[in-house]
Amino acid sequence: MDHVRSVAVNFLIPAGAAFDPDGQFGIASVLAEMLTRGAGERDSRQLSLALDNLGVDRSESAGVVNLRLGGSALARNVLPLLDIYADILLRPRLPEEELEPVQSLALQEIESLEDSPQGKVMVELHRRHYPAPLNKDRRGRAEDLESLTIQAVRAQYEKFIRPNRAILSVAGNIEWEPLKARVEQLFGGWSPGDIPDVVPQPHQPTSAHLNKDSAQTQIAFAYPSVPMGHPDYFAARAAEGVLSGGMSARLFTEVREKRGLCYSVGVRHETFRDRGTMIGYAGTGPDRAQQTLDVTLAELRKLKDGVTADEIDRVKAGLKSSLIMAEESTGARASSIASDWYFLGRVRSFDEIQAGINALTPAAVMAHLERYPVRDVTLVTLGRHPLTIPA
Amino acid sequence: MDHVRSVAVNFLIPAGAAFDPDGQFGIASVLAEMLTRGAGERDSRQLSLALDNLGVDRSESAGVVNLRLGGSALARNVLPLLDIYADILLRPRLPEEELEPVQSLALQEIESLEDSPQGKVMVELHRRHYPAPLNKDRRGRAEDLESLTIQAVRAQYEKFIRPNRAILSVAGNIEWEPLKARVEQLFGGWSPGDIPDVVPQPHQPTSAHLNKDSAQTQIAFAYPSVPMGHPDYFAARAAEGVLSGGMSARLFTEVREKRGLCYSVGVRHETFRDRGTMIGYAGTGPDRAQQTLDVTLAELRKLKDGVTADEIDRVKAGLKSSLIMAEESTGARASSIASDWYFLGRVRSFDEIQAGINALTPAAVMAHLERYPVRDVTLVTLGRHPLTIPA
Repeated sequence: MDHVRSVAVNFLIPAGAAFDPDGQFGIASVLAEMLTRGAGERDSRQLSLALDNLGVDRSESAGVVNLRLGGSALARNVLPLLDIYADILLRPRLPEEELEPVQSLALQEIESLEDSPQGKVMVELHRRHYPAPLNKDRRGRAEDLESLTIQAVRAQYEKFIRPNRAILSVAGNIEWEPLKARVEQLFGGWSPGDIPDVVPQPHQPTSAHLNKDSAQTQIAFAYPSVPMGHPDYFAARAAEGVLSGGMSARLFTEVREKRGLCYSVGVRHETFRDRGTMIGYAGTGPDRAQQTLDVTLAELRKLKDGVTADEIDRVKAGLKSSLIMAEESTGARASSIASDWYFLGRVRSFDEIQAGINALTPAAVMAHLERYPVRDVTLVTLGRHPLTIPA
Repeated sequence: MDHVRSVAVNFLIPAGAAFDPDGQFGIASVLAEMLTRGAGERDSRQLSLALDNLGVDRSESAGVVNLRLGGSALARNVLPLLDIYADILLRPRLPEEELEPVQSLALQEIESLEDSPQGKVMVELHRRHYPAPLNKDRRGRAEDLESLTIQAVRAQYEKFIRPNRAILSVAGNIEWEPLKARVEQLFGGWSPGDIPDVVPQPHQPTSAHLNKDSAQTQIAFAYPSVPMGHPDYFAARAAEGVLSGGMSARLFTEVREKRGLCYSVGVRHETFRDRGTMIGYAGTGPDRAQQTLDVTLAELRKLKDGVTADEIDRVKAGLKSSLIMAEESTGARASSIASDWYFLGRVRSFDEIQAGINALTPAAVMAHLERYPVRDVTLVTLGRHPLTIPA
């Protein structure tokens, strides 16, 4: 990206919450935080100082499958930035004295979920819809976090922070050859390990209502779609767009605009390697919650009755705008490169993605919806009263 | 921005919540939403369709002083996009039948605040720290919203949606002359009105504790700084950076890294035309809340004892990185152009801002902190138990 002055760097390491061993739920999040608490020649404080001196805006987090580490900075700082990340990944100190504050932060993340009804209903939806271990929450379990030892954290590091299947993506105004040479020099000696795969267990999704004296009722739902890389992938994204891409999309129109039932309503496509899922959410007052659920589910069911050419044209316009805008951001590009590599084992070109969008037609979307109709909806609600699923 | 394909368009209209008349608190937010419910030749549905067909990612909201409307799209769509916004601003239909759903949405925004302890403590901090009318919340008041009439909304439109002091900013890959000609053609006939100024009333800030059975204790505080445009402005931003710019900043280090007291802690600089304010926030467990407050306030007090050259160098590195990254985004640029124009009556160049950052020294920051020491702190807490302000 010759016309920018910034760079974004992204590491994906398959060491996410799905791999948390029994009795150590939350260890992936703790490890993500501990990695930056001193590495190589630098203690925790010196490491923060070094990254701040480079003007790096960074973050570390545990996803379900991958740990994500990285940041944005001026492109001229990319090599020193990679030097520091090589320390973080290959030579973290994982010092015992830092464990207690890190545990304390992790426990507070669990505690704060109780003050976030929307966060809580989403965690419960994922727990009930997905099979283990894809259903694990990065926050883990309080009793497990409290009993974590530094030995366990170090063992987790030794086992999982390995170059096998780790992904590094860089986007920005970079010189490719020097960058490649430095990455080879910094990471070439990283010893591979024996990295396990995520193996989903047999599972039957269940719906539920969580009683909570909240002001609003939270509605979350999920149903099967196709994963990224599937031949139907763009058709599935178009179905998502028909329901909730833009202000004229069906859910937004029927639930928000016409009836004023709730401020935000929509579905989004979420993907693992082996499965894609549509995740829906609406939050509204207790007196409007049943109607919101009824109208939302009715719109989901109506999908099978057809989509119009105008709708697909609008969805295409929206997807193309988003694609072009993401193309202009170093952060979005670094992240999509890493994600392509993880899901597809290669990086798609702009033209390939655009061709996928251009090829969308109402017939293709309907054919997809026949193969993957809206069904087996997992519903989780949270609030003062349970809701009824309409027949 | 010749190397991008997108454009961002921003309208600032001085018609924000500060101007909400007595008995009509919340009308600015309702008006922002009603403006897009049909305009010119298009009804509400047709308007959403037209913007979605252009791939526009848009939003409308009421701030304290300004309504903000606008969106991002492909640069080639900028003229048709402006055509639609001319309808929205000059020829909105403000149809009576749309008022009820819009009222319903506004009431739900108030209701949902009860499920967001962090949002609630911030609204209360602003209400107590700022003088009227700067202390008004965009959500308004339930009883006022319920009794709003379409006549009141139309009167509010007639009075406030005027070109006097309205700002339009556009950033992206645009051709200046055709753009200027179209804006002249579209908005040249907009009739000026008699727009009132925001006149802050005499006010004595007060601290308070809100009893709420929340899982975490919320801590919010505010103290005076200087506004954008003030000679001390960059020094004030540096003081903000010393406390909470980056992972090695003082509050982050003392509260989060060393003690694990809370996940997020920090201050941010907030500006009106006539005053700047430092706003602080921390959320933590009830058993750690008093210590969090003590450590935080101790760090604020320690500022007067000096800042180091290393700290200022880091703050400068962070500010410059942020500046350069913002420069690459059409959305961030459209928004900073509008904000410069609003606060300064002109648009600063990149070089001018960079020079302001480069000129920062520990001596300049200390001179600012002597003129504007941390004092008169307004503190608002929310949770199960009140906290004690240390002597």
